[in-house]
Order: sequence, then structure tokens, then C-alpha cells
Amino acid sequence: MFNELLNEAKKKAKKVDEYILQNLEGDIKELYEACKHLVKAGGKRLRPFLVLTSYELFRNDVERVLPIAAAIEIFHTFTLIHDDIMDQDELRRGVPTVHKVWGVPMAILAGDLLHAKSYELVAKSELDTSIIKQLLAEFTEAAVIICEGQALDMAFEERMDVTLDEYLDMIKRKTAWLFKLSCRFGALSAEAEASYVDALTKYGENIGIAFQMVDDWLGLFGSEEKTGKPVGSDVRESKKTYPILYAIQHANESDKARLLEILAKRDKKEEEVQEAIEIIKRTGADRATKDMAQKYADAAIKALDAIPDSKAKEYLVSLARFTIERSF
Amino acid sequence: MFNELLNEAKKKAKKVDEYILQNLEGDIKELYEACKHLVKAGGKRLRPFLVLTSYELFRNDVERVLPIAAAIEIFHTFTLIHDDIMDQDELRRGVPTVHKVWGVPMAILAGDLLHAKSYELVAKSELDTSIIKQLLAEFTEAAVIICEGQALDMAFEERMDVTLDEYLDMIKRKTAWLFKLSCRFGALSAEAEASYVDALTKYGENIGIAFQMVDDWLGLFGSEEKTGKPVGSDVRESKKTYPILYAIQHANESDKARLLEILAKRDKKEEEVQEAIEIIKRTGADRATKDMAQKYADAAIKALDAIPDSKAKEYLVSLARFTIERSF
Repeated sequence: MFNELLNEAKKKAKKVDEYILQNLEGDIKELYEACKHLVKAGGKRLRPFLVLTSYELFRNDVERVLPIAAAIEIFHTFTLIHDDIMDQDELRRGVPTVHKVWGVPMAILAGDLLHAKSYELVAKSELDTSIIKQLLAEFTEAAVIICEGQALDMAFEERMDVTLDEYLDMIKRKTAWLFKLSCRFGALSAEAEASYVDALTKYGENIGIAFQMVDDWLGLFGSEEKTGKPVGSDVRESKKTYPILYAIQHANESDKARLLEILAKRDKKEEEVQEAIEIIKRTGADRATKDMAQKYADAAIKALDAIPDSKAKEYLVSLARFTIERSF
Repeated sequence: MFNELLNEAKKKAKKVDEYILQNLEGDIKELYEACKHLVKAGGKRLRPFLVLTSYELFRNDVERVLPIAAAIEIFHTFTLIHDDIMDQDELRRGVPTVHKVWGVPMAILAGDLLHAKSYELVAKSELDTSIIKQLLAEFTEAAVIICEGQALDMAFEERMDVTLDEYLDMIKRKTAWLFKLSCRFGALSAEAEASYVDALTKYGENIGIAFQMVDDWLGLFGSEEKTGKPVGSDVRESKKTYPILYAIQHANESDKARLLEILAKRDKKEEEVQEAIEIIKRTGADRATKDMAQKYADAAIKALDAIPDSKAKEYLVSLARFTIERSF
């Protein structure tokens, strides 16, 4: 069903990866190897796909926006490297995380370098100066908001009374903002008219929310082999993901008490993690999470109504559907 | 001797600090407190002083460049926070380091936020769009180079055969680049003519090198009370600073063997650190470091010959002298 989309995504990912790897060369071998580690490990490249495809809605010369697509992916890689240190995660994209291979200091530094590099690619791109200025203002503002989202995500680990509104606010910052930005950057780089930029902004935010909810789902009900990340680590880290919040709110009294008890433990035994997942399953959180994600994916597709039909638009619609159905 | 300079620096620091603190407000209290911690702890604000004074060489409306001066200081604060994590330092500006107070994850995040914020301030400043674009291209490129410098600094901890040329290359990236950039940004923001920008570029790089060498000196021969940092930690961490390299090259054979033996130890006893400092002193590294720093300070002052005399120029000359004489 998604073969055409995935082929197109692979074609675009190849170009983006080439561009990224070309731009991650330097005389300090170890540092740049650490920077390239997660890029080489694969990944879906959804964000650069959104930049390129949003651009293609309006213009054909997509090479022009390749540095912007690469910049967004490099930025994303930076956040993954630092988040993995903060969450003490050991596996990502099926390979050991950067700090597991090179140690925390080098991983901090590799992240910092990628962070700076992402803006550098935009600053040195060949777009109009005024567009570059706007993209950089939005990009750096986004980075601040994404940091805030990550701070909320961590703070929520200590809290058992996180509301759905708080969760939504958190994932809008931590995840959806960069999806939104990817779509905006494609449209802004193509100098699309304001109403189209607005439509893509809505599409991007909604697909970002849907994506995170499905990520939450995969973290509990997915397969480690396919996601490249350990299943259950959100329970281990007491993350307040959508299915976990849903379970806390919908479990019967004894299940709820037990779930909260397990989540509150610092060091959880493997059977406790499994027990928590069973409790979460019993509440119907599995279906509820997918249903909620579907609503946001539908809203994303709806936002595209404002935009003329094209092959690129078909890809964006298909991507919204894939976001829900994906197993990786 | 430096009273006038220090008064002027204090006046400028006050404005910069107000601007920085105004721009570090957000709804996630803990995160922003961590961001403001080192700003509130004091510091000399040399880099923003360089931005503002380099600007004043050419224009009077210095408020215009305040966001740029603040951006450079915020960037510097980001590097301090992350460097302190990497070096496991516990004291900075006389207060516990950010990761000691808030933990490593929050310190990583606070650094990331400040990193993004520094560019955001430039992107949203009211300078001409083409100047903003140039500053951001140079700023982000500098950040990459500064990360490389920090990677070299760490790599040198494991090596005992670091040459003076390698050391110079490392501090040019790690420290001098941001001094150079501060001067360039002042001049570029004032739209100074190219030969003046070049002169300030030279001044900034040379004063940056001198500053780092004196920093190395203070780390061994200074007073913790005045510097706000523990004395001897460069020995503890096997850093290859100027006086340590000088001592390795100039110590007699038995002293050299003992110094290398101590530096190579993972966990050094306090008396071993003191013994190493005594060996370093015996080689004359104390005087040699100051002499070398003086040469760079002289070169910095010489570079200013190209620029018309003014009060601002006097401050820059005075600052080059202060860089050598300072005890903090």
C-alpha cells in the first residue's frame, strides 16, 4: 500500500544522506565519526522528506532546498544524540547510541557540532537573503521550544498527575514543532503564498502529533527488531506517553494503583515492566492511542484541502496514512 | 592602573546582563534557572565588551549592537556549561557548576537552549538583513570550529607528545576564535571598512591566544578565591596547557619522567598534583607562559595601529594589557 511512498522516500533519503555526509567531514576524525554514526545507521528521513515534498508542491528545482532538508535532519540527529544521553538509552536505529560508543563527553560535543552545523547549512544556502533570515529566526526559535519540550518530557517522569493537555503541549514542542517547521521551510523556500504556508503549517503540526502518538504506541506494542529501540523503555523511564496516560486514567482501581506503583519505582525489574504493559493493554490503550493518532492524521490530510492537487500532495496524504500504519 | 577600563567594563557588563536576563525567561522555571545560573554568578564579560567597544570605534549608537554582544556571551555560557560536564568540573565563577546543581540532563539541555538562543538573538536583531546573514554564517561556522577545539583539548588529555603547534592550533579554535569573532561582529555591525575589520580580526585572535595562555597560568599559579575555579585541575585532568607543555619540554630528565608519570595517572592524589606543580615551577614555566602571552598581547596592540585613535581604541589597548596582568 505504501510502496510508492516508500520508494520515493528512499530516493529522497539517498540524496539527503549524500549531502549530509559530504558536509560532515573535518580533520578531527573521531568527532566527525561520532557525528555521522546515527546518520549512517539509517532512519526514515521523514523530516527532510517533508521539506522536499512541501517544496515540490510549488516548484520543481528541488535541489535548491536540499541544504534546508539536510539541516533539519542534522538538527534532528543532534536532538537524538543528546536525548539518548539524558534518557540513558543504549540502542537507537538498531545500533548502540553515540555515548555508548564514544562516551558522554564526545556525544555532547558531537550533538553541539551538529546543532551548529544545521544552522550553518541554512545560513550558507543559496536562497534569498531575506528567506534565509526568516528560516534562521524560525529555526532557532524552534530549537528553544524543542529544548523546552524535552525539559517537560523529563519533568513528567517525576509526576504521576500529568494531564492530557499537558502531554499534548509537551509533544507539540518536543516533536510536532520540527515536523511543522519542515513543512513550513519547504513552502517558505518555494516562496509559496501565505495561505498555502498556513495549510502546510497545520498539516505539519498534526502529522507531528500523530507521529509521536504512534511512536508512543510502538514503544510499548511494537517490535524492537523493526523500531531499532528497546520495547518498554518508556515504562522503565516512567515517561508519560499517550498510552501510559490513557491507562492511568482508564484502569480499574487496583490496576491503576499497581501501575502507578511500578512507574514510581526507580529500578524496575523486567517482570514489573511486563506487568505494567499488561495493565496498559487491559485498558484498551492500544486501540485508543491509534484512534487518537488517526484523528490527528485525518486533520493533517484535511489541512491539505487548501492546496492544489499534485503528485507531491498525494505523497503528503499517503505519508499521513503511513504515519499511523507504520511498524518502524 | 586598570581602574578606568574595569569601570567601563562594569558599565557595559550591566547593560549586557540586563539584556541577557530579559531574554532568558520562559514558562519552564527550572530550565531557565539553569540557563541563568552562570550569568548571575558574575564573570568578566570580556567578549561582549569586545563586541561593544569594537563597534564604538566606528559608531556611537551602541545599543544597536547589544543583542549581538549578548548573543556572544550567551554562546560562551553554553560552552562553559557543556565543558564543565565534559571535564567533570564542580566549581565555576565561585559557584557550583550547572550539572552539579541540576544534574547532567538539565545541564545538557540548558546549554542547548543557550546555544540556540545565541543565534536567535542575532537572527532577530535589527541590523541589516545581509549583515545578519553574514554574522550567522560566521557564528555557526565558529561554533563548529570551537567544538573541534574542545575535542582536541579532550584528545590531548590522553597524549603526552602534544607539540606547541598543536597546542596553538587547539587554543585558536577553542578560545581565540570567539574573541576574534567578538571583534569582527562589532566592526561588521558598524559596517566598518574591510581593512579595519581585518585589523580587529588580528587583534581579537591575538588577545584570545594571550587570554588562554594566562588562563592556563592562573589554573596553576592563580588563586582559587580570585578565579573562582580550583587550582591544579589542569594537572588533575592531564590537560596540555602552555605551562605544562613547557615543563615537559624543559624539565630535567628525572623531573620530566616524574611529571609524565603523574600526568598519566587516572586518579591523582592531591600531593601528586602539588608535586607536579612544583616540577612545573622549577622549569620556569611560570615566567615563560607570561612572556609568551605578552608577545601575543603586544601583537594584538600592534594590530590596532591601523585604526584611528579614540577612547574606544584606548580601552582595547588597555584590555590587551589587562589580559596579561589580571588575577581573575
